[in-house]
This record gives sequence, structure tokens and C-alpha cells, in this order.
Amino acid sequence: MNGAEAVVATLRACGVEVYFANPGTSEMHLVAALDEEPALRAVPCLFEGVATGAADGYGRMTGRPAATLLHLGPGLGNGLANLHNARRAATPLVNLVGDHATHHKPLDAPLESDIDALAGTVSGWVRRCSEAAGLHAAAAVAAATAPPGQVATLILPADISWSPGASPAPPLPLQPPAPVPDDTVTAVAAALRSGEPTAILLGGPATRAPALRAAARVAATGARLLCETFPARLERGAGLPTVERLGYLPEGARAQLHGLRHLVLVGARAPVSFFAYPETPGLLVPRDCHVHTLAGPGDDAVQALAHLADLLPHATAATAARARPEPPAGDLTGESVATAVGALLPEGAIVVDEANTSGLWLPAATAGAPHHDWLTLTGGAIGQGLPLAVGAAIACPDRPVVCLEADGSAMYTPQALWTMAREGLDVTIVVYANQSYSVLEMEYDRLVPTRDGRARGRAARDLLDLSRPDLDFAGLAQAMGVPAARATTAEEFTAQLAKALNEPGPHVIEARVPPLFGPSHAS
Amino acid sequence: MNGAEAVVATLRACGVEVYFANPGTSEMHLVAALDEEPALRAVPCLFEGVATGAADGYGRMTGRPAATLLHLGPGLGNGLANLHNARRAATPLVNLVGDHATHHKPLDAPLESDIDALAGTVSGWVRRCSEAAGLHAAAAVAAATAPPGQVATLILPADISWSPGASPAPPLPLQPPAPVPDDTVTAVAAALRSGEPTAILLGGPATRAPALRAAARVAATGARLLCETFPARLERGAGLPTVERLGYLPEGARAQLHGLRHLVLVGARAPVSFFAYPETPGLLVPRDCHVHTLAGPGDDAVQALAHLADLLPHATAATAARARPEPPAGDLTGESVATAVGALLPEGAIVVDEANTSGLWLPAATAGAPHHDWLTLTGGAIGQGLPLAVGAAIACPDRPVVCLEADGSAMYTPQALWTMAREGLDVTIVVYANQSYSVLEMEYDRLVPTRDGRARGRAARDLLDLSRPDLDFAGLAQAMGVPAARATTAEEFTAQLAKALNEPGPHVIEARVPPLFGPSHAS
Repeated sequence: MNGAEAVVATLRACGVEVYFANPGTSEMHLVAALDEEPALRAVPCLFEGVATGAADGYGRMTGRPAATLLHLGPGLGNGLANLHNARRAATPLVNLVGDHATHHKPLDAPLESDIDALAGTVSGWVRRCSEAAGLHAAAAVAAATAPPGQVATLILPADISWSPGASPAPPLPLQPPAPVPDDTVTAVAAALRSGEPTAILLGGPATRAPALRAAARVAATGARLLCETFPARLERGAGLPTVERLGYLPEGARAQLHGLRHLVLVGARAPVSFFAYPETPGLLVPRDCHVHTLAGPGDDAVQALAHLADLLPHATAATAARARPEPPAGDLTGESVATAVGALLPEGAIVVDEANTSGLWLPAATAGAPHHDWLTLTGGAIGQGLPLAVGAAIACPDRPVVCLEADGSAMYTPQALWTMAREGLDVTIVVYANQSYSVLEMEYDRLVPTRDGRARGRAARDLLDLSRPDLDFAGLAQAMGVPAARATTAEEFTAQLAKALNEPGPHVIEARVPPLFGPSHAS
Repeated sequence: MNGAEAVVATLRACGVEVYFANPGTSEMHLVAALDEEPALRAVPCLFEGVATGAADGYGRMTGRPAATLLHLGPGLGNGLANLHNARRAATPLVNLVGDHATHHKPLDAPLESDIDALAGTVSGWVRRCSEAAGLHAAAAVAAATAPPGQVATLILPADISWSPGASPAPPLPLQPPAPVPDDTVTAVAAALRSGEPTAILLGGPATRAPALRAAARVAATGARLLCETFPARLERGAGLPTVERLGYLPEGARAQLHGLRHLVLVGARAPVSFFAYPETPGLLVPRDCHVHTLAGPGDDAVQALAHLADLLPHATAATAARARPEPPAGDLTGESVATAVGALLPEGAIVVDEANTSGLWLPAATAGAPHHDWLTLTGGAIGQGLPLAVGAAIACPDRPVVCLEADGSAMYTPQALWTMAREGLDVTIVVYANQSYSVLEMEYDRLVPTRDGRARGRAARDLLDLSRPDLDFAGLAQAMGVPAARATTAEEFTAQLAKALNEPGPHVIEARVPPLFGPSHAS
């Protein structure tokens, strides 16, 4: 057995069944090793950012790592942005990167680069595979799945791959989340009993149903229930507790936190603003608010919350009522798209939300939809939505995936559409075609001091605008084998969404919506 | 003047006129600063790999740096692969990366990552801008243009950008290439006079016309003229010396170097094989061949070669005769595409070659075409061709650009097509649609030991094949505003190529060609 075979066999024994792959010459023995294991699924990705984003989506939905298969430093480089998002999502992920043979590296061949340095920026664990390839692979899975989950990068030199004499290793024991000490829970209970304004901020693994239900029991005694701005996987909808996401803009988040005397962190960190602005502090917690950490990201949040609830007076947790908006009519806008999604979202849907500014109305419109998962842009590196949808659909083949995608972000990793077609994935993609980087239209006006009424210059006009020519997303999808339609009214959109949701396989709907923010100074 | 304005004004004073940009919130003051300088050109790129590849193409063609404008670590990550290629091309390039405000970095906001570590893997120079923003910007240009050229990354924190009190700095003196000492030239002259088998290997800046002409005078005394496998910019065609590129596969390169007793390096490094293979040495130079370095990459190769020629007996340098093949007929193949390109390539064309296996016949078919430049995939990180063509076209608006692009590589950075449409660039793109990663079909068979006649498994079949569904490149181009056609015969292709070359603006021709290599074991 060669090293590649030992790695693949070990990963399989550890439960890694899916590879999101874009291999090159240095990974051909890994491809051959996958050939020997017909039960494994090797998913071709035409760009590495698709592979890494898909592995993130798969890990978020299963709690188990998928593997990537990337070619040397440049392949890893192309996958970094979505590994960054996976890092912020604390997704278990085995990032498998081929390297030149160990004797070839010192020759500095054209594709040689510092893989270790790149991997270090996104990985909680990086190791270079030696002869004991099986042991390294088992350690990679153990690292990836250590609570709350992380990117574990295993670098596999080509000569280790092709050399015989390797053997697979057994799985290492799964590490459970750390129990939260009683006195931590007791201290938080005292704060909650104080009667002072208190909020619970959920994040990381605490945005899943069991933690939400326990948190809602706690909140029912008089605290507000918040979750981080960009949760990795938020379970929501009818029958589940309603949780308010912290706002993206610091003004909004600060208003939500205003007046609090206690903030209880459960799997979340103390909130900070997404970007810095002049004369604006980045820490969002009010100065006189006491921050309590009930459970860190790797701790057992469900146990801690249940224990906490038991220490408090019994109260009935509120849950969202089943309620759907009426299908919209008239103009197609971000708001009417949200209304249609709320009206039609299927039971058990996985929503991938990279709608950015166009998505403003989505949380309210879908709050009473049937139980669903909401996956967000955890790390702010756009180009995540379509790849994440690939991974979610492969993780959960019996659940519909709805990908709500801003046009600027869609153009980062459009290659994911081809993988959806190849694999026949049941993904309904809505592209909000507002022909602009609308969030930057807003941020430009927030950041750049008033220009004495002057028009914006050519650079701002050219760089924030996605028209001239308009992007034809329906055409783009069809060119990659995905059926597509274009909607310009709410009625058209609703009909196309219903059709796409009712048919298997991927569909793209290009929703022509106006931008939420445009240039405030006419040019 | 704020820091962003000081950077932009300084870069302008240093000759940086073009920005290939994909900014985010942390770069809005840089966008505003570009607005204040209407003579500057800010080219919108829908993905950072387009921006960095375009800056590479611009730098290769002008010898002067363009700037990128990238958003934080993930933006830089998306641009790394083409920065890797630029590093291997020794292209002068100012890589401008925005960062969070200095006081915001410790908060570890979602987009925070280790920009410095990423930048270090592709840059010869990395600096974080402090208050003296103008001085840093001038130093970046000096670093980028230090012979032979390199990627200089300037990281600009948002608060440095927006804070007043900065001022522009004057350009630093341009550093010339280092003169080659007389005794180095004399020693090489002795080797050439020995009468023993000798070759001159040109690389880096020594593949441009002045160095080629001087090298051909030297070679005329009895040496062979070779150049590196992947030159950054090779001038060639009728009236120029013919230079043989070293082969990509080690067997081929070794055959070219077989029997040599002297190898004279001019701007090139001693050649090594692109990839490692079992039981195959990576160094390509024969064991008993003496390697002489006449000029390193930063040395004055033209002066050294001219001096060398003067020390040798006078001989007339051979040049390529003007000769074009007849336009092809019949089946459309890599060979007939090459024939058509050779028949029609315009005077002064810039050829961007990411044709990979399909390009095998191009060098011979175009050897006698009118004087042109040939730009290649210097670092092996695919997805370079379309972005490089963007930069070359902006650098040389009066010259036609012909981009010969493999389908697998085209799918890495297809967003470049939109920038071509937006900017109205005169680029004729030929996509070799062979529906496979043909080079990997070959490498799989070279690397994976015979499988006892067994068919390949599903992983190899799925991962090396780009069909199921076929990619529709004409549709893809049209969806991004680029006129496109599809050719299935040599006659169709020739007519479409002639039409595209005769019309201004970008055009895509999808050439449906068979793969050069396919699965050798039927599946």
C-alpha cells in the first residue's frame, strides 16, 4: 500500500466519504487511491474555491469533515477565501493539499511555493505527511473534529504518496465538547436572577435546535435572545425559538445591545464591529455591561444552557408560530423576493444566504416558515454561497437547498454551477441581479467625507457598478448546464421559484431587482 | 491630504497609472483618492485573480508596474495564484492590499487574517504602511522595479488611509540592471571557443529582442540557442532569431540537453523538471555538462551578450524567415487551430498562451509569422491566460491580443471576459474546448503504475473529465457581454478567427477540438 492509499483508507475509516477535488499532477496517486475505494465520492470542482466552500457546507450540515483535494500552493491559494470562511464557521474540514516530492522541493520548480505559510493562515492544525501517512491522516480527522471543529490541513508530498510500505491507521477517539463547570453556570444564573437587563448571545454550535431550545427556556425568565451576526448554521422557523441576529452595521448592533447590564456568551465571542469607521469604537458591548462566558466555542453549550435553565424559575419558552406571507405581486425587489421565499420555503430547506444588502427582508419574511437551516457568510469573504450550496446538497441529498446569492458574490465562484449540474444537486439559486456592489455604494457614502456636493469620480462609478455590460446570469447558468430563468416582476419570480422548488436538480433564477443603495451623488 | 491620497499621488508620480481593482469597505478611501486623479485608470475586476493576472500582463508588456487594489486577506488570497505566476515572471507589480484599521486588528473581526504571511509567499518586498504613506509607496515602486522586477506588496490599513496629514513622496531613482564583470564574460567566451557542444539558455529579461539578437550572434559561432520552458515574454517571428523552448516533460528537455558540455545561463536558472516522477532526477543538466552563469536575472544580459559576441569570431546571426502556413481545412484539432493562427497572426500581436496540451503545434506554426510577443504560464498556476490578456491589452491598446486558452484553465478566471467587455479590449480568445484536463490524462498514465489492464475507477473518470455537461464557452462569453462563436471545422474556425481579428473589441471562439490525451484504459 502506498502513502496515498493509506491516507484515503484511513480517512475512510475515520468517516471521510466525500472529496471536493481539483487535483493536479502531484495528486495523481491520490486520485488512483480514490479509484480503489468505489464507495467514496470524488466531486469535481472547476476551481478550488468551489472545493473548499463545498467542504465547508458539507461539514456544517453533517458535523463530519469532508476532504478537499488541492494542487500545491496555488491550488490552496485559490481555496483560501472559503477556508477562511470555514475557519470562522469552525467547520470540521480535512484540507488535503498535494506537494512536490520531498527531493524535488529544493529545486524550486515553477510551482514551488510556501504551502505551510498559506495553510497556517486558515488552519487550526497543519501537518506535513511523512512515511507514517496513515497516522497523520487519523490525526488530521481528530484535529478537524476537535470541538467546535476546525480546518486541519494535511500536506502530502508526491513521493510519500507514491512510495510503498505505508499502512492505514485506526480512527482516534472522538473528542467530546468540554463540560461547563457548575460554578460558571451558577454565576450566570445569579446575573439572570438580578432582574437587570440581560441578553444571551448564541454563536458557534449554540445556534442549533437543542441549544436554541435550552436557551429559550433561559430567556423566558426575562433575557433577550440574540445570536451572532453571521451564524454558521442557524436552525429556525415555525416551532423553534426566535432568535434575533446581531446587526451588521455597528449602529444597529449597538442599538440592540443598548442598556444591557449583562451579556451571556454561549459559543460566541464578545461582539465587535465588522469594519472599523473613523471615530467609532470597534467593541460593541456597552461600557457598563458585564460580559459572562457561559460556554466557549468548544464547550458543551446544550448541557450548560439546560443546567442554567434548571437553576432558574420555570418558564415556557416562546417559539415562532407557523406563518407565511402571501405571495407577492407587482415590482420585483429585495422585499418581494423575500416575501416569495417566505411564502414557498419548503419544510427542511437548507438556506444558503449570501444575499448581502438584497437580503434585508429575508429574516422577517421567513421567520414563520417551516423548520429550516440558515447558513451565512461567516468570514465575510464573498464567493461562498454557491460552493456552500454544493456541499450542503451533497451532505443532505433529501433536503432542498435554496441559495440566495448577490450578483457580485456569485461572480466570485460561478464554477460551482457546473458541479451542481454534474452531480445533479437539488439547489434552487436566486441571483439578486442588482448590477452593483450595493454594500460598497453604502460604505463609500458612510466612509468618504461629504465631497461638497461634487459628483463621484470615474473610479467610484466604475468600480462599484456591475453593469456596462449587464451580467446575464441565466445565460451563465445555462452555459454550465443549469436550467435558468429570468424574472422581472414579483409574479414571474414567484412562479419560477415554485417551479424550481418542485423540480429536482439545480435551477437558477435571475431576479432583476433594484439596488438597495446606489450612488448618492448623481454622476 | 490623507494617507490614501498620498499613496495614489506618489504612485502616480512614480509612473503607476493603472489599477486593477476589486476593493471592499476598507479600501473606500483609496477609491475616493483615485476619484481625485482623473488621469488614472481604475479597471474593475470581478475576481481578484483577474486583477493580479492583469497587473502581471501589464507589467510584462510595459516594464512598468501597474497596481492592484485588493480587499484584506481573502482578497489577496483570491489573487495569490496569479501573483505566484507574476513572481515567476519577475514582473514589476505593486500589490496594494487594504487592511483593517490598526486599532481594529486586535479585535479579530470576521475578515481579519494574516495578510503579511500570505503576501510573503509571492512578494519580494512586503511593507505595512505607516503614517509616512508617501514614502512607503515610493519604496514599493522602487522595489517592484528593481531588476529584474518583482511583486512589491504594500499593505494599507484603513486608518492610515483615512487619516489626514500625509504627503506624497518623490520617486526614488530607478535601479539599472547590474553590469556583468569582464572576467565572467571572458570565461564564457573560453567555453564557447572550446568547440565542445554548448548551448545558451535564455530566460527572464533575456528573451526580448535586443538580448535575442545579441545571443544569436553568439550562437552563430556554434552554440545552440534555447530558452526556458515558460518565458514571461518571448519576442519571436520573422526577422528575429529562432530560439527553441526547453521541453515541459523531463524526457524531452533531457533529450534537448543531451551531449552538452557547456550550458550558458543568461537570465535563466539551471533547468529542473516541472514535476517529480518516481526514479527520475529533477535536475535536467547532464552530469558532465559545465554550467556557466553569464547573467543572472537582475544582470544586464544585453550588455553581457553583446560583449561576449564581440570576443568571438564574427558570424551572422540566423533569423526566422517570414513564412506562414496555408489556412487549414477539414477536422478542427489542436494542429489545425495552430495552422490557422500561424496563417493569420497579425503583425505586432501579443499572444497569451495558456493552451496547455492543445498548444503543442503552436510554436512551429507561428515561427515565421510577423514579429510578435509570446507570453506564457510562468508559474504553472492555471487561470492566468484571460487575466494576462486583459493587462496586455490595456498596456498596449494599439496591438492585437490573441489569447489561446485551454478550457480547464479558462474556467479558473472566466470573470476576465466581463472586464474585457467593460473596457472594450481588443482581445481574440480561442478556447480549446476539449472537455478534459488532458494534461492530467497524460500524467495519470505516466504516474500510476499499470493497473493490470483494469479500467480506471470512477474518481479518475470524474475528476479528469470536463464533460457531463459540456461547458458552453460561447454562451459563457455572451453572458458576460463578449461576442462569441463556436467552430467545429477548420474552415469555420479560420473564418471566425479572421473576423475576430478584424473587428475591434473582445471575441471568443470556442474551438471544439479532440483532447491530445485521453484515458488509455477504456472505462
